[in-house]
Amino acid sequence: MFPMTVHRAVGVDIGGTDTKIGLVRFEGDSDSLRCAKFEIETRLKIPTVADRGPEAVVDDIAAAVASLKPPPIMGIGVGCPGPLSPSRGVVFGSPNLAGWRDVPLRDLIAERTHQPTVIDNDANLAALGEYCASPDSPGDLVLMTLGTGIGTGTIIDGRVFHGQFENASEWGHTIVQPGGLPCPCGQCGCLEQYASATAVVGRYTQLARDSDDSSVRPTVTAADVARLAASGDKVAGEVWDDACRFLATVCVNIQHAVNPGRVLLGGGMSAAGAFLLSRVVRHFDALRWRVHDDFPVIGLSRLGNDAGIVGAARLAVSGADH
Amino acid sequence: MFPMTVHRAVGVDIGGTDTKIGLVRFEGDSDSLRCAKFEIETRLKIPTVADRGPEAVVDDIAAAVASLKPPPIMGIGVGCPGPLSPSRGVVFGSPNLAGWRDVPLRDLIAERTHQPTVIDNDANLAALGEYCASPDSPGDLVLMTLGTGIGTGTIIDGRVFHGQFENASEWGHTIVQPGGLPCPCGQCGCLEQYASATAVVGRYTQLARDSDDSSVRPTVTAADVARLAASGDKVAGEVWDDACRFLATVCVNIQHAVNPGRVLLGGGMSAAGAFLLSRVVRHFDALRWRVHDDFPVIGLSRLGNDAGIVGAARLAVSGADH
Repeated sequence: MFPMTVHRAVGVDIGGTDTKIGLVRFEGDSDSLRCAKFEIETRLKIPTVADRGPEAVVDDIAAAVASLKPPPIMGIGVGCPGPLSPSRGVVFGSPNLAGWRDVPLRDLIAERTHQPTVIDNDANLAALGEYCASPDSPGDLVLMTLGTGIGTGTIIDGRVFHGQFENASEWGHTIVQPGGLPCPCGQCGCLEQYASATAVVGRYTQLARDSDDSSVRPTVTAADVARLAASGDKVAGEVWDDACRFLATVCVNIQHAVNPGRVLLGGGMSAAGAFLLSRVVRHFDALRWRVHDDFPVIGLSRLGNDAGIVGAARLAVSGADH
Repeated sequence: MFPMTVHRAVGVDIGGTDTKIGLVRFEGDSDSLRCAKFEIETRLKIPTVADRGPEAVVDDIAAAVASLKPPPIMGIGVGCPGPLSPSRGVVFGSPNLAGWRDVPLRDLIAERTHQPTVIDNDANLAALGEYCASPDSPGDLVLMTLGTGIGTGTIIDGRVFHGQFENASEWGHTIVQPGGLPCPCGQCGCLEQYASATAVVGRYTQLARDSDDSSVRPTVTAADVARLAASGDKVAGEVWDDACRFLATVCVNIQHAVNPGRVLLGGGMSAAGAFLLSRVVRHFDALRWRVHDDFPVIGLSRLGNDAGIVGAARLAVSGADH
């Protein structure tokens, strides 16, 4: 038995549009990344004005953290689009943070806030948040965040898996269709081009434009496409099913590469809930091997948009994970 | 500075046809899986008569170990085709070991030899052997053994990576061609169906049969196909190049999933040496992303057929790796 202790930390989740900031209270064994209980006590959302430069963004974050008037905290954890180096605290640059190049984000935030600060990839910390949120199923997990792109994070033995170059778990850029659609990353056939919310909307919109069927209408979100598919729209049904089949294909590949207990689906597309999950599971069951029953449970994210700040705060409590 | 110590162990590499057994001497820091120096002092090869049952195979192995007349050893490490459980010491069964089902291989060998025994997947231990063989480049690595099938092993932080269900690193059964060729595992489009030695020979033989070009001749090994390709045979060139492109595709996926420092190519197909490596590297350079320079070095196995016994003996020295 471990004594139950209380820790607080601030979690920051920097996105291309908004930055989410939360004061998170953890109650549990401080030695373990699993937590019996946590609560977001206060939260804020501020715009990310990336093109004003990293210093201005850091100023905004520091002001927001101060406005939370936090009680004593263990520190600040920051999730940011990568590629980045958690060990050096440097963000190399990201298409979503225009003009950022080799930004020493960790030290900038630590200097402005006078708090111990750690940073990691946003999808990694969302995965860590999900891990905290299911203390009853503590095994390894991979989280896929299906949004503008596809971010993924992998938790092995309770820790974020980074890999030798600190950029592991980029399943959104694994090639699922050799010679397939070009991706801004420079590859062709990346999962992201077939199963992100952007890809689903883009493909449906294109088919709608090409279609003679006047019932096909342009849509705005992947959830719209899911709704149309659920209501019997044939084009939407095909687009949605294709995306789910590619996701299931990558679930098979995750099974064989990482062999985790769970693969969780989050991000904008997961707003479709069971209509996403049941399709992915159905395709997975059809695609998977028959040799051994080492299958992950495929499920939906529990924390949704909160996963990033919970994981970031958890990292601050446990200290840099490397 | 650590004192240099000498350890000996027996490594056993059970294959579908032959079982290789070696007495291996390690000199180095016993706390680390890296070794400054090792030497296979004695080696034996005996037939694997799997259909006589596991007990008979274990008897043969025990007799062979005894015949080595080993000096004091730390124990016996055994690599075996999976799926299996290293932690429970049980082989669930394998297409290459007809009739084996839930065999408690570890305990059977320990009982017959009176030696501490550990078991692991054969490809995992070959990867561990390769890791031992390059103390100068100690980072994470993935080994792909291109033979009858494609076995792969992953070393992370100096240890075999097993995953939650102990069956991680089966890259040969990741799907590289959705809806592609059926695999005996029950999936379609597995890498193994496109880039194993068997696949290369099979595809060339089929094209040779279909071809009107009388210069196309059936071949026996993947190295033959490589030789024909190198000498300008068009059909062989196409078959070889396709296999190399699929391997490069999976190297990209390994990069994004595991982010290792090295991917090594071994097994029968690696007999083609630079003709394999240069093609795979060329395709990798064409396929890889432009966002970040987190690329593994792709290289050839150093130990070839010895990797399995070296890794198995190393596991016996370090103790079960879980």
